[in-house]
Amino acid sequence: MNIETYQERIGCPLLRERVTSAAQAAELIRDGMTVGMSGFTRAGDVKMVPAALAERARREPLKITLLTGASLGNDTDRLLTEAGALARRMPFQVDPVLRAAINRGEVMYIDQHLSETVEVLRAGHMKPVDIAVIEAVCILESGAIVPTTSVGNSASFAILADKVIVEINLAQSRALEGLHDIWIPKKRPMREPIPLMSAEGRVGTLAIDIPPEKIAAIVITDQPDSTSAILPSDAETAAIAGHLVRFFENEIEAGRLTRSLLPLQAGIGTIANAVMAGFCDSPFEHLTMYSEVLQDSTFDLFDAGKLDFASGSSITLSPQKSAQVFGDFGRYKERLVLRPQEVSNHPEVIRRLGIIAINTALEADIYGNVNSTHVAGTHMMNGIGGSGDFARNAYLSIFATKSTAKDGRVSSIVPMVPHVDHTEHDVDIIVTEQGLADLRALAPRERAEAIIANCVAAPYQDMLRAYVREAQERGGHTPHVLEKAFAWHERYRRTGSMLENES
Amino acid sequence: MNIETYQERIGCPLLRERVTSAAQAAELIRDGMTVGMSGFTRAGDVKMVPAALAERARREPLKITLLTGASLGNDTDRLLTEAGALARRMPFQVDPVLRAAINRGEVMYIDQHLSETVEVLRAGHMKPVDIAVIEAVCILESGAIVPTTSVGNSASFAILADKVIVEINLAQSRALEGLHDIWIPKKRPMREPIPLMSAEGRVGTLAIDIPPEKIAAIVITDQPDSTSAILPSDAETAAIAGHLVRFFENEIEAGRLTRSLLPLQAGIGTIANAVMAGFCDSPFEHLTMYSEVLQDSTFDLFDAGKLDFASGSSITLSPQKSAQVFGDFGRYKERLVLRPQEVSNHPEVIRRLGIIAINTALEADIYGNVNSTHVAGTHMMNGIGGSGDFARNAYLSIFATKSTAKDGRVSSIVPMVPHVDHTEHDVDIIVTEQGLADLRALAPRERAEAIIANCVAAPYQDMLRAYVREAQERGGHTPHVLEKAFAWHERYRRTGSMLENES
Repeated sequence: MNIETYQERIGCPLLRERVTSAAQAAELIRDGMTVGMSGFTRAGDVKMVPAALAERARREPLKITLLTGASLGNDTDRLLTEAGALARRMPFQVDPVLRAAINRGEVMYIDQHLSETVEVLRAGHMKPVDIAVIEAVCILESGAIVPTTSVGNSASFAILADKVIVEINLAQSRALEGLHDIWIPKKRPMREPIPLMSAEGRVGTLAIDIPPEKIAAIVITDQPDSTSAILPSDAETAAIAGHLVRFFENEIEAGRLTRSLLPLQAGIGTIANAVMAGFCDSPFEHLTMYSEVLQDSTFDLFDAGKLDFASGSSITLSPQKSAQVFGDFGRYKERLVLRPQEVSNHPEVIRRLGIIAINTALEADIYGNVNSTHVAGTHMMNGIGGSGDFARNAYLSIFATKSTAKDGRVSSIVPMVPHVDHTEHDVDIIVTEQGLADLRALAPRERAEAIIANCVAAPYQDMLRAYVREAQERGGHTPHVLEKAFAWHERYRRTGSMLENES
Repeated sequence: MNIETYQERIGCPLLRERVTSAAQAAELIRDGMTVGMSGFTRAGDVKMVPAALAERARREPLKITLLTGASLGNDTDRLLTEAGALARRMPFQVDPVLRAAINRGEVMYIDQHLSETVEVLRAGHMKPVDIAVIEAVCILESGAIVPTTSVGNSASFAILADKVIVEINLAQSRALEGLHDIWIPKKRPMREPIPLMSAEGRVGTLAIDIPPEKIAAIVITDQPDSTSAILPSDAETAAIAGHLVRFFENEIEAGRLTRSLLPLQAGIGTIANAVMAGFCDSPFEHLTMYSEVLQDSTFDLFDAGKLDFASGSSITLSPQKSAQVFGDFGRYKERLVLRPQEVSNHPEVIRRLGIIAINTALEADIYGNVNSTHVAGTHMMNGIGGSGDFARNAYLSIFATKSTAKDGRVSSIVPMVPHVDHTEHDVDIIVTEQGLADLRALAPRERAEAIIANCVAAPYQDMLRAYVREAQERGGHTPHVLEKAFAWHERYRRTGSMLENES
């Protein structure tokens, strides 16, 4: 490692003597502590200290409460879980090993709306953050920390913690400096409006301002971010994108939107990414994004000349896209900003700007309630993430899913979802490869009709119609046959298929 | 009726010739129209035109879409339902006859977050309002309309409609003039921050500014508002209030709140009213309210010297309290403001001010999901109202309910709610007469433990523990036994009791 290089990245001379090994820095973290780490959708997470911490936890009793922005890369959640170091974890995760521990009840997982974690901390509704561990491009002369490919909750963790460990990552380009806009709300009741009035607005500082004496240790690394594991578009995701493009064309035709639509948000993952990429071949222009994670599709849209500006809280790319974008970052930088997730996901800003929110459903029911998180209503997949922040406050809340899973043995549209993340009030559009159901201003019985007619794969359509008929005979605003509401899930559990004749 | 009196209430001379009968005014409303009427929790609703409309609908084909602020008084919903005049109804209702028609699927009811109705209209997500019918104290010289005991959606209905009918109500005191603060957001993407920074702030105008030529008819009435049907406190509501007072004393002790707490919101109805009245005998002082409906308890708190200021969207009182308050309104007026429900319930303001939200649950489940609306998951009671606007964005979201209903044959805490209005993410505290479960920063399995230990009536506690044991054997982050999740509701349907030995 080039000593010159990392010293240039510590602008505050006092702090240069705080450089130490990851193992030494990790010693600052003690059993029972609450630790706030940088990292949002694998981007900008700390790499060295958590690995050293996991190493230590294999030798001595050490259990922490771990808070992050969202998901981590570099197998951090796996390493900490396997070392038995996680007592509690929030607000989001995607790791299979951690997921299994959560579902066994071994790690207490608090799945949160991503805009709310630091609000809960600031209000004292949970134990305070003892120590923050933040990845940085560099530290400025003032001691201010320049984050890397995500902001997430890093700024508030650093502000609220007693001590801060900084990981300076030489693999993160200095070109990232200037990308961030750090704005932190005051404690209530002194809170003021967020002055942000457009996706491209800048209202904060370029770095995280904290007293330099709080920086207790600095660790140097050159380990790159984990890349995203997004799948390529397929016929079904292309069909979903096509339905949405046609829907928006109609909205423009009706005079409700212009060709630049309104600022777009897209959830994490393959489907939302494919939908956004589908806009490359669309009549829309001068688009903007006000989202949380900027994925490959954001840069596809830039390259297609469709997108004017993108605001997010992190940048998470596939290996190829990552090489392209960070290899020529100057080409994009002026059209990008990364914000704290409290701002990127803030109800106030989302409602003000009028976001078009596109998120992914695990399953939806005939009335439009959405399950984003719990397989069979019980087993956590990842977490609600920011979908609730956006869906509740959006101009238009869209949920996309393929109509079936498991080679058709599971329908993504069911009589009743066994776990509700988004109630029918927060779901305007459901779209599958089959078609699009426009649920705006419809009553529940009408919503059921629209969803069944447009979104459901053939073998399940008749089954749902039969359910609705029986339910309506019993009556009610939202008719159900409670003792049969979960029969499909129960059948899948017993036979491996929701279909009636497969057992 | 005194001709002098009503003419004094029409400041714009041009408009005096628009005074007509209710029947004549109602002729402006035609079959198929969308009509926006004033009225929020029975307060400030129009009385004459809807009755004339119902009368007409008995003689000729006439079906409308009716939008209001919230519930209406004066049997308007019953009269219109019985006359077959309601095709569609939103966003809230409480009438037994309308409720039955909704549950038979005869009236299409769109149950909405109360902050969102005019947002949906403004965005063009539903058919526009053809005509607004608004109760007024008076019309100013400019043609601006001074609303009465509620603002609700009146201002936006009047602004968005092609024509406006005004009902001037001589039974509403002119002392109400000056009470209102009308602030309307701009259409997106030109939307600006709501400049409101405290419950007592004033940011708008005193009346609803519209071009006077839009006022197509004026009807005069002297029919008073319907009063509230709130029940008196009983031992159980007093116990609920007691648990909450002790909880807040502990929060003050812990340094998280001061004796003036944070602005309070209380939902509609007996339990929330009783909880607020319970604060009259508390150590708290200089309280403020930022709520939607101001009920008897608001004025009890004023009279007890506990409350400094109350912001709402309507005032709905019992007959006795109404006589006292409106008989001496000057005593309270400077400490009150009524706002559009879009502002009183706005996520932006609720999150900024840090509201303590106290709402009523129909039932809650062991993980803290709340059903506020659907009896047995199917039959609409009233509607979600503003509870979601507040619960999602509150500093602290509290749901109160008695632990049982129907003489103990129904438990208000169940394994799984068959309809979710508020997900576990939006529920911090559940309180019954049994006790209070503090769910902050708890994982689902911990939430279940806290709720069962604190909130559940004796016979149901063991039943829930048995359910949890069986569910945990199956595993999962949020353990359930899907085929038994609604067994209690099913048993009640069959036997009239959720208890196991009653059949």
